Amino acid sequence: MADDLSTTAAEPDPLLQLLLDGEPRTRNQLMDLTGLARSTVTGRLEMLVAQEFVVPHDAAESTGGRPPARFRLNPAARLVLAADVGATHLSVALADLTGDILDSTTSAQNIAAGPEAVLSALADQARVLLDRHPTGKLAGIGVGLPGPVEHLTGRPIHPPIMPGWDSYDVVGRLTQEFGHPVLVDNDVNLMALGEHAKQYPDVEHLLFVKVATGIGAGVISGGRLHRGAQGAAGDIGHIQAPGHTELCRCGNTGCLEAVASAAAIAARLRAAGLPAETSQQIVDLVRAGNPVAIQAVRQAGREIGTVLAACVSLLNPSVLVIGGSLSQAGDHLLAGIRETIYARSLPLATTHLEVSLSHTAHQAALHGAAALVLQHSLGLR
Amino acid sequence: MADDLSTTAAEPDPLLQLLLDGEPRTRNQLMDLTGLARSTVTGRLEMLVAQEFVVPHDAAESTGGRPPARFRLNPAARLVLAADVGATHLSVALADLTGDILDSTTSAQNIAAGPEAVLSALADQARVLLDRHPTGKLAGIGVGLPGPVEHLTGRPIHPPIMPGWDSYDVVGRLTQEFGHPVLVDNDVNLMALGEHAKQYPDVEHLLFVKVATGIGAGVISGGRLHRGAQGAAGDIGHIQAPGHTELCRCGNTGCLEAVASAAAIAARLRAAGLPAETSQQIVDLVRAGNPVAIQAVRQAGREIGTVLAACVSLLNPSVLVIGGSLSQAGDHLLAGIRETIYARSLPLATTHLEVSLSHTAHQAALHGAAALVLQHSLGLR
Repeated sequence: MADDLSTTAAEPDPLLQLLLDGEPRTRNQLMDLTGLARSTVTGRLEMLVAQEFVVPHDAAESTGGRPPARFRLNPAARLVLAADVGATHLSVALADLTGDILDSTTSAQNIAAGPEAVLSALADQARVLLDRHPTGKLAGIGVGLPGPVEHLTGRPIHPPIMPGWDSYDVVGRLTQEFGHPVLVDNDVNLMALGEHAKQYPDVEHLLFVKVATGIGAGVISGGRLHRGAQGAAGDIGHIQAPGHTELCRCGNTGCLEAVASAAAIAARLRAAGLPAETSQQIVDLVRAGNPVAIQAVRQAGREIGTVLAACVSLLNPSVLVIGGSLSQAGDHLLAGIRETIYARSLPLATTHLEVSLSHTAHQAALHGAAALVLQHSLGLR
Repeated sequence: MADDLSTTAAEPDPLLQLLLDGEPRTRNQLMDLTGLARSTVTGRLEMLVAQEFVVPHDAAESTGGRPPARFRLNPAARLVLAADVGATHLSVALADLTGDILDSTTSAQNIAAGPEAVLSALADQARVLLDRHPTGKLAGIGVGLPGPVEHLTGRPIHPPIMPGWDSYDVVGRLTQEFGHPVLVDNDVNLMALGEHAKQYPDVEHLLFVKVATGIGAGVISGGRLHRGAQGAAGDIGHIQAPGHTELCRCGNTGCLEAVASAAAIAARLRAAGLPAETSQQIVDLVRAGNPVAIQAVRQAGREIGTVLAACVSLLNPSVLVIGGSLSQAGDHLLAGIRETIYARSLPLATTHLEVSLSHTAHQAALHGAAALVLQHSLGLR
C-alpha cells in the first residue's frame, strides 16, 4: 500500500532506486538494468504508478513499430518534512523524493524553552509549509537535535544544552500530531548524512565536523553513517586538546570544545575587549579584518586540526568536511585545520585527502533529515 | 564448479551460511529458515554435496514414515592457508571452513631478509603443512604483513620496517606457487578480523589495538573491517601523545609509537640498566615483578589510553581489544589503558565499553587471514 511505511528500514525497490536519477526508461531498459523478469518489472511498475511514485513519460523514439512507453520518477509523489532544531534556531523544510528542498522556514527558537514549546513551534512551522503544498503526501518526518539521541527510540540522552529534553518522547509527540514515521537523530549525524547524500554520494569514507557553539563530528564509513554502540560516535568535542587545561562544561578539563569552539573563542575575544557573544559576531569580526579575531580563529583551527589529525590517522577518510556556524569564517579556520593535519598525519592518509568547507552549509542538517527518512522509509539513497 | 573461486567477493550461499554452525538440518528446515522454494533448496543442496561442502547426516528422528534426510557442513571440504608474517617470526597455518586452525608451524624469520627469502620460507612451511593433509583442497591463501598494504593489489606501500618489500607483488609470487586466490592485508587488520570472527561475531563496533614493537589498530564498523580510503585506517601509532617530543622513526615527533611501544619501553629499560631488547624480555621482567619494568609498562598503558580515549570518543565501540606481544604483560598494561580511557571519555561511550586482552592472542592474525579468505572467496563469515 502507498502509505504503509513502517519505521523499520524498507527494502529499496530496485526500479525506484534506478529511476531516482530522473531519467525516463522503457520496460526493456529497466529489465536490462535490474536483471528482473518482464513480469516482475511490469508488476512493480504497475504498483509504482498506482502509488504515483512513477509516471508515464513521453513515448521513446520509434524503432519502427509502436514506440515503447517510458516511465520516470515523480519526485513530488511524496514529501518529507525535515526539521533542524538548533540551540537558538528552528528550521523546517519540505523536501521531495530526490531530497531537494522545495520550501523552508526558519525562526529564532531557544532549545532551553523545553520540548513542548519547541515541538509546538516545529509543528506550527510544519503546518504552514504543508498548507502551502496542499496536494503533497507525507512520507515521513526527520528531526535533528543538538545533543545525543538514542538511535532506536529517538529520545535525547542527557543532552548537555537541552534542559527538560532528557528521555523526552520526541517520536511519540510528533507521531501524535502528524501520524507519520518520525525519525530523530543528532544534528551532526544528519549534517554528515546530508553532505554525503547531496555532495559526495559515491564517497565511502567521509568525516563531517561541525564547529559552532559546540564541536562534534559525523562519521560515514563504507557509505553508511557510523553511529557507534550507543549512538555516541563522533563526539570529538570532548577529546583532549594537547597541552590544555581549560575547564569544560562536561566537567573534564582541556576538552577541544572548551578550547576551540565558538563559545571559547567568543570568551577570549570578549576578554580582549571585543564584542563577541555569538558565532555570527566572530564571523563578522573576521570578515571585517580584525587581527585579534583572525588570529583566534586560526589558532582554534590549529587546535581542531590536532584532534582531526588523530581522526584521520584512525579512519583514513577521503573527504573531511568542515561545517557549522564558525565555518563561515572560511579560510582562516580551514588554514589552521589544514596546517596541523598535514603536519601530524602520515602522507599515505593525507596525499589524497580533500579538506573542504561544507557545500550544503546551513542546510546540511535539513538535507540529512530528508535523507534519513528517504533511506529509512523508502529505502532510497 | 567446486574450485571456481575468483578473487572478487563471492555471494554467500544461504544454505552454506546457515549450516556453518555445524547443526544438521532437513530440507524442510532449510526451506523454513531461508524462505527458499523446495526446488531451489534441492538444487543448491545437490551442488553443495557435489562440491563436498555439505554431506548427508544420519536420518532425523522418525515422524511416522520414512525419516527425512538431514544435511550438515563438511568443515574439511576446503582448507585455507593462513600466514602471519611478523617482524621477526613467520607463522603458517591450515584452517577449515569454520576458521578453526587444524595445524600450524612457526619459525624465526627476519622480515628484512626481503620478500624472496621470506615468501620462499612461507611456501616451504605451507608445503610441509599441505603434505601433512594430502586430501585437503585449498580454497585460498590469506597473508598478513607488518606494514601498510594496498587493499586492491595486496602490495606493501612504503612499509617502514620491511626493506625491499615496497610495491612487491606478493599475490603474484604466491599465486605462481600455489595457483589459488591469494589475499594480503596488514597484520593488524587481520588481527581485528580474527578476534571479531572468533570471539565477537555479533559485535557491530570493535577496535583491536596491537601493542608490540610498533602500535596499530584495526577498526570493525558495522560488523565489517573499515580499511579507509587508502587502506591506512587504524594507523594510531603516529597520533601524537600529548606532551611528548620524542623523535619517531617516521620523522615526526611525539608519536605514540615513539613513546609507548615495546621498542620505546625497551630503550627506557636499557637506559636504566635492565636487559630488555624484545617485547618478551619486557614481559619477563614484568612477570618477575621488576618495579621499574612494571612502572614503565603501566605508564605506556596510560599514554596509549590517552590516544584510545580519543578513538573511543570518535567511534563509540562496544569492545576494545588489546593484543600484540606486549599485551602478554597483562593487567599492568590494561590498568594503565583503562585508567586514562575512563578519565577522558564521556560516560555514554564508556559505561558499556568492554576493554579486554585479546582472546586469540598470538593466533589473532592467523584467524584473521583465514576469515579474510572465507569471507572473500566463499562469502562465509
